[in-house]
Amino acid sequence: MRVAVIGAGQLGRMLALSGYPLGVQCAFYDRSADTPGGQVGPITTGEFDDLPRLAAFAQGADVVTFDWENVPLASLAALARRVPVYPQPAALAVAQDRLLEKTLFRDLGVPTAPFAPVDLRQDLEAAVARIGTPGILKTRRFGYDGKGQAHIRSRAGLDAAWAALGGEPLIYEGFVRFSREASLLAARGRRGELACYPLSLNVHRGGILAETRAPLRHAALQALAERHLRAVARHFGYVGVLAIEFFVVGGRLIANEMAPRVHNSGHWTIEGAVTSQFENHLRAILGLPLGATAARGHAAMVNFIGRLPDVRRALAVPGLHLHDYGKREARPGRKLGHATIVLPTASARDRALARLRRLA
Amino acid sequence: MRVAVIGAGQLGRMLALSGYPLGVQCAFYDRSADTPGGQVGPITTGEFDDLPRLAAFAQGADVVTFDWENVPLASLAALARRVPVYPQPAALAVAQDRLLEKTLFRDLGVPTAPFAPVDLRQDLEAAVARIGTPGILKTRRFGYDGKGQAHIRSRAGLDAAWAALGGEPLIYEGFVRFSREASLLAARGRRGELACYPLSLNVHRGGILAETRAPLRHAALQALAERHLRAVARHFGYVGVLAIEFFVVGGRLIANEMAPRVHNSGHWTIEGAVTSQFENHLRAILGLPLGATAARGHAAMVNFIGRLPDVRRALAVPGLHLHDYGKREARPGRKLGHATIVLPTASARDRALARLRRLA
Repeated sequence: MRVAVIGAGQLGRMLALSGYPLGVQCAFYDRSADTPGGQVGPITTGEFDDLPRLAAFAQGADVVTFDWENVPLASLAALARRVPVYPQPAALAVAQDRLLEKTLFRDLGVPTAPFAPVDLRQDLEAAVARIGTPGILKTRRFGYDGKGQAHIRSRAGLDAAWAALGGEPLIYEGFVRFSREASLLAARGRRGELACYPLSLNVHRGGILAETRAPLRHAALQALAERHLRAVARHFGYVGVLAIEFFVVGGRLIANEMAPRVHNSGHWTIEGAVTSQFENHLRAILGLPLGATAARGHAAMVNFIGRLPDVRRALAVPGLHLHDYGKREARPGRKLGHATIVLPTASARDRALARLRRLA
Repeated sequence: MRVAVIGAGQLGRMLALSGYPLGVQCAFYDRSADTPGGQVGPITTGEFDDLPRLAAFAQGADVVTFDWENVPLASLAALARRVPVYPQPAALAVAQDRLLEKTLFRDLGVPTAPFAPVDLRQDLEAAVARIGTPGILKTRRFGYDGKGQAHIRSRAGLDAAWAALGGEPLIYEGFVRFSREASLLAARGRRGELACYPLSLNVHRGGILAETRAPLRHAALQALAERHLRAVARHFGYVGVLAIEFFVVGGRLIANEMAPRVHNSGHWTIEGAVTSQFENHLRAILGLPLGATAARGHAAMVNFIGRLPDVRRALAVPGLHLHDYGKREARPGRKLGHATIVLPTASARDRALARLRRLA
């Protein structure tokens, strides 16, 4: 079985490593060969809009997938005429645009922050008048890890936010006073079967995921999150792993965003669940039976952002699982790796998490 | 970190896959490129006695190791003058020769079957006269998976056994009436620290490992096995993963053979222990801290010999972890893959094992 993966970042790398034991060969397409994915599987280099090159790359693959959300839709659509592309480009189209995404959530009865499209300065005035402050002005597209966002604490902040982002298609969202952030990941197979992981609790710093704990054992929130995710997945006839990030507000879940791919908040599943999100993504898109998603113990995952810890110091932490993405260049804000620890109880896990934090 | 691996079979493949998350690149050397290891890492092809080619291959590696026991000792010795070679060639020399191996066990106080060297036909007569029948005549070297062995049930069988094997350096061993077969694996680090896995129970069919269950929770046998393994490992100042296969006879352990490498009876550790034997071998030979070896639940491993099961049928078994070695050619007796299942109780594991057996 051969899977053609557009984008060769760390997500692709972990997909490929989970594929080998299944007899699945992932091949990558990216702009540069020396990528996390390209170090562990064959890679074709080219621009993401070079359709002939992409078509040649996908030739002979059983399925095309992507590890990066900003793949041009036109490229995926062209490939989809030759080879199955999962998750469906339609899901990616929605995930690429915060306005489409929030609108879909609303249409499906999935709660969101109040939001309004902002194209012109007067739209921003109107949005703030209706929704109030504080709020966040965001670019509709190409935002990730907190990029393309401006907080508006009061009307006095309008000018600065507009100066930073005005001119691009934007969305204004009311600020959600959440107690916690949680995400749900699920794999959906080609026949519509759905395997949901336990909810995880996430902590972001500077807009970037810093740490995840799982499972969040909360039956009511789990059921609610699964209902929301199922609605979204059904809408697309979705195939593959889908992630939805939620704000937890009292006993409610407010959907923040969806990711039509394996997701950083699911890295804990490599050691902390029976089947990892990466293996289940491959199983789903290849039409194979999905694997069990139950947690094995209590997991904590910490991202290494901007720098990797000393490997000797990291591996001296009992039970630590290191994941070095093989990136040659450390840059501030760049995810270079992560570590996961799995322990039999939540309290032991939380103590170990304190130790992991000191590494990050 | 770069590890040069001589031999690119399934053991090398699983070493490489466990290395990537640690930032460890395994590079392979084997006679053919299309090997289980060569599919997941860079490979240099050449003969195992081509010293200049081997030296060029090992150039720049932090350490040399091997995934195959019949690497010529002269080749390893030559490499060891340039790069650390772990496990030590001296341990491989003993493991390659059943007579040296049994003699070492005896010298270290590790119980073995009664044995005698057999070079000439009259040696065989003398050995059988002293040790009795039944017994097994074996080649001293190049035996694996039951090859190079002839059972001698009574003196009437001497002629046939001699006809089959006579002329090579041989060893005659008294047959051990064992109730069970168990193996102990341990990783020993560069500073002499030792991390032992729980004992596993093994079943062989036709001389080939068919299945493993672990952990065997038996404190007295575990302590005994660890004492025996520690004696062998200390003798060599051993670095890396070492396996010893034992016969269980009442409350005693009779050492059958040692393997100075990761071992088939330790494949369950990938999902069934905190740190896999593959990761711990890399940690040990690279001088990194060893990982925890505790079991996570109860594991069963079944080898796929001669043919792989249908992947769809295999993955439909809940919680099954498939390991396809990527071998293009299925041959009788050839190990093509394995599957592991890990469950919270031994009884659930044993029920799942029955299901795994039907796949094999």
